[in-house]
Amino acid sequence: MATVKYVLNEDQMPTAWYNVAADMPSLPPPPLHPGTGQPLGPADLAPLFPMALIMQEVSTERAIEIPEEVQQIYRQWRPTPLYRARRLEQALDTPAKIYYKYEGVSPAGSHKPNTAIAQAYYNKQEGVKRLVTETGAGQWGSSLALAGAMFGLEIEVYMVKVSYNQKPYRRALMEAYGARVVASPSTETAAGRAILAEHPDSTGSLGIAISEAVEMAVQREDTKYALGSVLNHVLLHQTVIGLECLTQMEMAGDYPDVIVGCTGGGSNFSGIAFPFIGAKLRGERDVRVVAVEPAACPSLTKGKLAYDYGDTAHLAPMVRMHTLGSTFVPPGIHAGGLRYHGMAPLVSHLTELGEIQPIATQQLETFAAGLQFARAEGILPAPEANHAVAGAIREALRCKEAGKSEVILFNLCGHGHFDLQAYTDYQAGKLKDYEYSEEEVAMALAGLPSVG
Amino acid sequence: MATVKYVLNEDQMPTAWYNVAADMPSLPPPPLHPGTGQPLGPADLAPLFPMALIMQEVSTERAIEIPEEVQQIYRQWRPTPLYRARRLEQALDTPAKIYYKYEGVSPAGSHKPNTAIAQAYYNKQEGVKRLVTETGAGQWGSSLALAGAMFGLEIEVYMVKVSYNQKPYRRALMEAYGARVVASPSTETAAGRAILAEHPDSTGSLGIAISEAVEMAVQREDTKYALGSVLNHVLLHQTVIGLECLTQMEMAGDYPDVIVGCTGGGSNFSGIAFPFIGAKLRGERDVRVVAVEPAACPSLTKGKLAYDYGDTAHLAPMVRMHTLGSTFVPPGIHAGGLRYHGMAPLVSHLTELGEIQPIATQQLETFAAGLQFARAEGILPAPEANHAVAGAIREALRCKEAGKSEVILFNLCGHGHFDLQAYTDYQAGKLKDYEYSEEEVAMALAGLPSVG
Repeated sequence: MATVKYVLNEDQMPTAWYNVAADMPSLPPPPLHPGTGQPLGPADLAPLFPMALIMQEVSTERAIEIPEEVQQIYRQWRPTPLYRARRLEQALDTPAKIYYKYEGVSPAGSHKPNTAIAQAYYNKQEGVKRLVTETGAGQWGSSLALAGAMFGLEIEVYMVKVSYNQKPYRRALMEAYGARVVASPSTETAAGRAILAEHPDSTGSLGIAISEAVEMAVQREDTKYALGSVLNHVLLHQTVIGLECLTQMEMAGDYPDVIVGCTGGGSNFSGIAFPFIGAKLRGERDVRVVAVEPAACPSLTKGKLAYDYGDTAHLAPMVRMHTLGSTFVPPGIHAGGLRYHGMAPLVSHLTELGEIQPIATQQLETFAAGLQFARAEGILPAPEANHAVAGAIREALRCKEAGKSEVILFNLCGHGHFDLQAYTDYQAGKLKDYEYSEEEVAMALAGLPSVG
Repeated sequence: MATVKYVLNEDQMPTAWYNVAADMPSLPPPPLHPGTGQPLGPADLAPLFPMALIMQEVSTERAIEIPEEVQQIYRQWRPTPLYRARRLEQALDTPAKIYYKYEGVSPAGSHKPNTAIAQAYYNKQEGVKRLVTETGAGQWGSSLALAGAMFGLEIEVYMVKVSYNQKPYRRALMEAYGARVVASPSTETAAGRAILAEHPDSTGSLGIAISEAVEMAVQREDTKYALGSVLNHVLLHQTVIGLECLTQMEMAGDYPDVIVGCTGGGSNFSGIAFPFIGAKLRGERDVRVVAVEPAACPSLTKGKLAYDYGDTAHLAPMVRMHTLGSTFVPPGIHAGGLRYHGMAPLVSHLTELGEIQPIATQQLETFAAGLQFARAEGILPAPEANHAVAGAIREALRCKEAGKSEVILFNLCGHGHFDLQAYTDYQAGKLKDYEYSEEEVAMALAGLPSVG
């Protein structure tokens, strides 16, 4: 019983990204200025992003052309393979067919370069010399570092201090690509210094690191900011994943009944799901879409859909999203890429519209799923991706119970070769589950701004 | 300027391995019994290996069919891509064309599963329940652990103690695949206990770990031994690399003037080079072949071609190879996969015949080459593979100086995602070069057995 792989030729690679905004019955409300609370126009975003990305952020065109230079870099690892997980199906003894798209073949080991390469390209085109960003566990930072090397841009990464100290290997990868990595909070920014003055031992958070990166970007003429998830243009770039899947599922002679992805900020999930959701919104094919988030950071399942700040120092725009509050600090689960207090506005809006069904899984379930997957399919998933694996296994077992031969498609967004400490801890019985009480969530949400 | 990728369809994947013994003007002399010094027959090897692998070890058939079950597993990541390194060529400003074959796309991140899968298959076919092996840095051990998971075999790995302690992540990967990993020297074997009695603080060596694995294999009826390099059948399985390259170079409309690979035991090097050496031996196409070894473990460039033991306790067969002596312990360079005192007999014999040109490179040169490669091509190589990169860069610079547009092909045998400590140390200026005096080498060789 072997795994079956569906490989596209390079000439079958998408030449345009898919913009789900074109097919949505309504759009999410606009981002607001963090100081004034007024809707933001393109000019307000210009200090942060190049105009091409700002235009993508507000575009309602269905197809947005992928520049040839971006396609050339994509082709180093794209199109990525789609697999039929026959050995996992056998292990689960399920009548369901399980397919997975594998994004871990990129040089950074995850889906993040899909947008890092595009963002670096547009910045380079507009004469930007330097990009500043934040990173938690390091997947995004190393992808932007890679993109910087490809396009000759300087990259500065504010890395959450606890990860900077605990994950020196991610930092080493960024530095190998030539990036400068700074532990956040740092003394380099006013935001960082303010935090350190109050909490000298602060281990940092994504919210603080975003504040520092934004501050450093707007100060310098030749410098812009880059974000690895949440925003519309970031999700747009990730749709190459789902667009390839559409062709590959056709090769396989199947169409997914259910699509499963893990959600932190929402980018890998949107990448695989949006092209299929679009087909549904256009009335072409039905599909059920499941977003799996960690129970330790349950923005979609326990958060509130409201305007909130994207960062701690309130320098970044406010967006309407499912949020646990910009001061929420989730426990140190190993799926670092899913530890964001908010959610992409497009994902939140589609959830509100009933197009996405969110669920939360506990850490122990996801690691058990990841190990079962690795022993069946050979690939060790990243802890983030284990959430998608766990969701797919739940669906496959539901099919088994119901005697249904449904088609399940999930996104294996990265490999776990950088995350072996997590597996060591799991196998040593050191990991714990987390459950929030209604009171804790209410307390976290109490600080939401009163706008929108 | 983009990297160009040459991808084969699955139906272009080789269906037979290439056996260079069929085309060699003479064969290496046979292995000897470690106790009697007499030539070994197939029956002598039966406690260690299944008969199918023993027959491959002595075969002179040119093509040996790859079983369908092995091809099915190979297809999870094979055929692997061949790249034209246009961005590296540009960075070097060389008229040479540089191609590289990338084996890091396997689930274990290196070429090692090519033989691990085949060995597990043949053992499973012959009713073996358990495979025992040794591992240094862990690339081989994790590949056999993967293969064990694929075929339902128990895997036990004796891991050199210094690596067991310093590289917990490789151990975690083996354990994630379900293998049992034991620090060597251990108290589980007579060989291990003897070492510990004399040196209680021994940090182990590959030679000791091989002794323990062999001892544990021969003791149990349902258990065999597996080796990740050196032996003929191991090199045979790796020839899928070069066979794919033959087709891919044809796609590219080129043929290599020079092939570069790194050599420790010799398996990845042989994998890419043997099919091309075979074409040369048959008088079809000329090619120059360069084997790059670490200056810190210079078996081909400073060792002696002689019969020597493969392990410390002298339980494994003796083979005629370039060796630094079975008691030689190389310094702790980061290219752990190249720290073996000997060399594959086929590689040694072909070197003696003048078909292979060995060179040695210093550690600092290889890491500088690896970083230059990563920033140009995006992929961070394993420290072992950096030796091949360094060799290819030397060739490209020679071409630049001579104004020659030669075609260079090298094997990028694995990614460096498990080796970021090495890059951290390199970038912090902590790594050193090593040079042996003639006296030191003579001393290491003084203990060679007087047979053959």
